[in-house]
Amino acid sequence: MGRQEAIAELTSLLGQRLTRSKSDLDLHGGSETHFPLSPPDAVAYPDSTEEVARIVRTCARHGCPLVGWGTGTSLEGQAQALEGGVSVDFSRMNRILAVRPEDMDVTIQPGVTREALNEDLRATGLFFPVDPGANASLGGMASTRASGTTAVRYGTMRDNVLGLEVVTADGAVIRTGSRARKSSSGYDLTALFVGAEGTLGLITELTLRLQGQPEAISAAVCAFPDVASAVQAVIETIQMGLPLARIELMDPDSVAAVNAYAGMDLPETTHLLLEFHGSETGVAEQAETFGTIAADHGGAGFEWATRTEDRTALWTMRHNAFHAILAARPGARSIVTDICVPISRLAQAIEGTRADLAQAGVQGPILGHVGDGNFHAILMFDETDADEVTRAKAAAHRMVERALTLGGTATGEHGIGVGKRDYMAREHEAAWPLMGALKRALDPAGIMNPGKLVPPGT
Amino acid sequence: MGRQEAIAELTSLLGQRLTRSKSDLDLHGGSETHFPLSPPDAVAYPDSTEEVARIVRTCARHGCPLVGWGTGTSLEGQAQALEGGVSVDFSRMNRILAVRPEDMDVTIQPGVTREALNEDLRATGLFFPVDPGANASLGGMASTRASGTTAVRYGTMRDNVLGLEVVTADGAVIRTGSRARKSSSGYDLTALFVGAEGTLGLITELTLRLQGQPEAISAAVCAFPDVASAVQAVIETIQMGLPLARIELMDPDSVAAVNAYAGMDLPETTHLLLEFHGSETGVAEQAETFGTIAADHGGAGFEWATRTEDRTALWTMRHNAFHAILAARPGARSIVTDICVPISRLAQAIEGTRADLAQAGVQGPILGHVGDGNFHAILMFDETDADEVTRAKAAAHRMVERALTLGGTATGEHGIGVGKRDYMAREHEAAWPLMGALKRALDPAGIMNPGKLVPPGT
Repeated sequence: MGRQEAIAELTSLLGQRLTRSKSDLDLHGGSETHFPLSPPDAVAYPDSTEEVARIVRTCARHGCPLVGWGTGTSLEGQAQALEGGVSVDFSRMNRILAVRPEDMDVTIQPGVTREALNEDLRATGLFFPVDPGANASLGGMASTRASGTTAVRYGTMRDNVLGLEVVTADGAVIRTGSRARKSSSGYDLTALFVGAEGTLGLITELTLRLQGQPEAISAAVCAFPDVASAVQAVIETIQMGLPLARIELMDPDSVAAVNAYAGMDLPETTHLLLEFHGSETGVAEQAETFGTIAADHGGAGFEWATRTEDRTALWTMRHNAFHAILAARPGARSIVTDICVPISRLAQAIEGTRADLAQAGVQGPILGHVGDGNFHAILMFDETDADEVTRAKAAAHRMVERALTLGGTATGEHGIGVGKRDYMAREHEAAWPLMGALKRALDPAGIMNPGKLVPPGT
Repeated sequence: MGRQEAIAELTSLLGQRLTRSKSDLDLHGGSETHFPLSPPDAVAYPDSTEEVARIVRTCARHGCPLVGWGTGTSLEGQAQALEGGVSVDFSRMNRILAVRPEDMDVTIQPGVTREALNEDLRATGLFFPVDPGANASLGGMASTRASGTTAVRYGTMRDNVLGLEVVTADGAVIRTGSRARKSSSGYDLTALFVGAEGTLGLITELTLRLQGQPEAISAAVCAFPDVASAVQAVIETIQMGLPLARIELMDPDSVAAVNAYAGMDLPETTHLLLEFHGSETGVAEQAETFGTIAADHGGAGFEWATRTEDRTALWTMRHNAFHAILAARPGARSIVTDICVPISRLAQAIEGTRADLAQAGVQGPILGHVGDGNFHAILMFDETDADEVTRAKAAAHRMVERALTLGGTATGEHGIGVGKRDYMAREHEAAWPLMGALKRALDPAGIMNPGKLVPPGT
């Protein structure tokens, strides 16, 4: 292990931009959730692609692991340094390199955050639509194949990354994709690196698709008698081709938490929150069409709002739901898990989860990006209560098993990281070793984010 | 080379469904375009995934090449057997396995054609949107990452394949993706096989996203003074977020060919053909908005049609343009080439190509999927005139060079095949050897469609 030699060389290269302070190591070894600390041996703060390439070449020479770090908001411990090594923090590589309104694209460094990008774009009439909630870095969002509330309309990071610059495990700098909107030229390397969680290389530049800010936006909220009715309304709405920009489900427990947190008085039943983007007449027509479908399924209290302040109130409620849920039980920790199923199985998946949680005595309000068949449960527990910890983890495990049994995936948007690697064999069967073969081809020494995603021993 | 042993074993396995007749070999060694014949040694007609797996295992044991075959409509010779071996013809694997209206997806065998699928779906109110013109097989469309006129609205095969079953080079059967609409679970193997042109494995099953048939469709045609004005109108229309379903450009030479072929009298200048999908009021609004933008850019004779027969006439004209262009010069052969650039560079790319063709004395009408920055030139030549052949090939070469210089790609939708491998090094630079590393990892013996896509000697 030439790890100390690697760090010594990196200190010569980066000076103060290589740190080994305990606070910095602990920060870069932690996560947003319940996984134990896994600190790196050092944290590097590169300023340029060339520096990243030199860091990787140095680490490659000494067999020293490398893990990328954006804002640390991933939910499955993707950026934890399971085998130590160097955490490459991209916070200084946060420049917007080119905005091209005619092509509706932008080229950025990976440390640019979602909110910083949209702030910068405001005057152009364009925006970047992928919204996972957290103010994540776009390099991190690409690496975890993030999505969020707007994926039903605008897609996930898979759909919105046109091209990448990547430093591969041997320290070479490659470019994937181009600025052309489509291409049939060779293997889709962009898609290979998006979602690879840093196990194949480090993203040093991204070219992203942008969208035009819609002329008009309206939002709506509607209460349903049960999950099945709400999901059926969603299915019919999508089948009609209504271009919903967001469609979110809150189960009765989530609504109760939001009521308590924000002093609201929504009926404590399943709700859908919707947003429509389009022309003035288009959004009005969409809202009316949805209202009719909702009424067919027992939807009540349907209200729609075009005023900015009313819409903001609605989506603030949704964005604060996570905090509202945690606030309902001060001091509790949580497992924020995420599954995705075919939409025909969604009601079954949500209701099965609710019944299971009730039986297991686990508090777990549910929030869902239901247009995609994706939902989250926030499973709360007191970490000093070993029995409750065990029950919460077991319930999270059964949620994933349920998703896979229903033809879905172990994770719609949070990724694999530390938390879900054990499901890879069941979900992918013979395709998982094939992922291992790709990993060996691109990172034969296994230095890129080791211990993650591919089969152990790859 | 145990090729003869492989074929003998396959004869035992498949009986009459392994053929070696000259006509069958020639058919499976040909292409739609000007490449010389490269016949396989035998053609296999499997009935099932299990048979495909047995064919691959047999060939793997004997080092015998394998090439997939759908309908033979690819334009760059992708299915030609450059090194002989076995052509695996999927025409008997043409069953639609499951249609799921609630999930808006379908699972099919790879030999199902685009038209057969849409015929089968008609009663469901759903359709599969990717339309490359030819009645291609969906396995072939996935393998070449096909797209076509509707990609501007519905995306390409990259966006519309949810999951695959693939027989890999060792004869294993793997599944990629799931029926969930999105996933962050591991490497995106679906995207890796889509566009791989059969060099990594043979697709034996596809799960595809479907779209709801729009409530209303309208179409429009509009003449512009020049290419730049037409392209500027397209850019502004897309920036406004107008959800164009199709937006096609025909240059003056294409319009002249269509006039002659169909007895029409369109002014012989640049035209845009458009289609809008949405609600009744939505399509009317879209057509009006486009009309206003077009007028700002000198658009004239803007007409829009909601009657089915009028729309059909318009799109029949577009679909027949290729035949109309060839009919203008009976007996000529053609290079149908395809490039894609950032839309801000599209007018420059088209005008540069037109000027170049005029100077070189090459007839080459231009048709474009301009919403994507993608266009085709149909370069005609008399194959007995060596000088004209040379000039046409040189002009096609300069088109690709121009696309790459303008930040685009050597092919937007036709793929690499035989015709464009020589551009891979320039387009992808250090990423091309990385594609070679992936190929070696998944097909170490190099039996899957050898001689294509990856660097020679991979």
